[in-house]
Amino acid sequence: MRIGELSKATGVPVPTIKYYLREGLLPAGELSSPNQASYGDAHVRRLRLIRALIELANVPVATVKEILESLDTNSEPLHDQIGRAHRALTPTRRLNSTEDARAAATTQVQELIAARGWTVEPDAPALVTLIDTLAALRTLGQDGPVSRLDDYADAIEQVARLEIEGVTENPTREQLAESVVIGTILGETLISALRLLAQESISADLWKGR
Amino acid sequence: MRIGELSKATGVPVPTIKYYLREGLLPAGELSSPNQASYGDAHVRRLRLIRALIELANVPVATVKEILESLDTNSEPLHDQIGRAHRALTPTRRLNSTEDARAAATTQVQELIAARGWTVEPDAPALVTLIDTLAALRTLGQDGPVSRLDDYADAIEQVARLEIEGVTENPTREQLAESVVIGTILGETLISALRLLAQESISADLWKGR
Repeated sequence: MRIGELSKATGVPVPTIKYYLREGLLPAGELSSPNQASYGDAHVRRLRLIRALIELANVPVATVKEILESLDTNSEPLHDQIGRAHRALTPTRRLNSTEDARAAATTQVQELIAARGWTVEPDAPALVTLIDTLAALRTLGQDGPVSRLDDYADAIEQVARLEIEGVTENPTREQLAESVVIGTILGETLISALRLLAQESISADLWKGR
Repeated sequence: MRIGELSKATGVPVPTIKYYLREGLLPAGELSSPNQASYGDAHVRRLRLIRALIELANVPVATVKEILESLDTNSEPLHDQIGRAHRALTPTRRLNSTEDARAAATTQVQELIAARGWTVEPDAPALVTLIDTLAALRTLGQDGPVSRLDDYADAIEQVARLEIEGVTENPTREQLAESVVIGTILGETLISALRLLAQESISADLWKGR
């Protein structure tokens, strides 16, 4: 199909498609004449993936490119590919909080990880975010999540196991890798939306009109 | 304290503090002389809250301002304040997906909500995000989360109940509102970080070196 048809099939405007082609997110079409390229189903599928990462998960274009390259080369170990997807979901900035709150949060997280027997790199970006967030909650006097961290981790570990269960059904290494990366990133949006709906419902029952 | 001391106490640079003052995120200090303002503990606390929302949860400055105003007036019903915090966490853009995938996702979400007895507004932004995400996963051939949606919802509802349990301990209406809004927004960062750590650990056990 031509670029106009590709645009129609995916709902992505032609200038946006051209931008993804220039940035190397989308592989070039097959030249059918010197000025005419032809696109196939793989392009439709890739475009849908790009849009989902950008629109739903707010992944920056440069990071989408890295993720797609890592999927395409397929030589990177699966665990490293997951690490790459994780970095796309983790804020890179650090947060200042009081030294006491940070020290307490660090100890709490170390104890949590030891108690659960989690295998986590000491420089995992999510570790920094978890400590920062707990320190911020402590500093702001919000003790609810802080005192229930282990119960939170129980429920969340349950989600993570469901997710892994879902991806390990994939028969090939390629499909497994794609599934892990997409699942990690879009899974976050899915979980966020479910959480907000559950909260809205509980809040409506408790507080509507108050 | 003076603005320089406020900066020292919070680690926020003076030009950034001045920006928040201009934008109305931070209330003006008390004038101690025509050119000198004095700031107190409430400013320290407010600055920490602003930074946490912006740095950890990527909330845009304009939305932070809305949220703070809603907390300060305190006349808005609690349920509406939660709705405001929810909107800060929900992508506003829609995603194109195939009509079949969208129809299937819409039906699945309606059935989920009916089965769980959730009270959710038909135009809740998270509802749109949930449908969009499920439609994208279907379109991309990722059936794992789609076929386990109800189990995901079980685990997430558990988290949402823990969160509400944590905030209802607050004795005053003001503290409750603050707790709900901060908890909703920073809770998302907390849950995201816990999920990524759980995934990293499961992935390390299964796939490290593969």
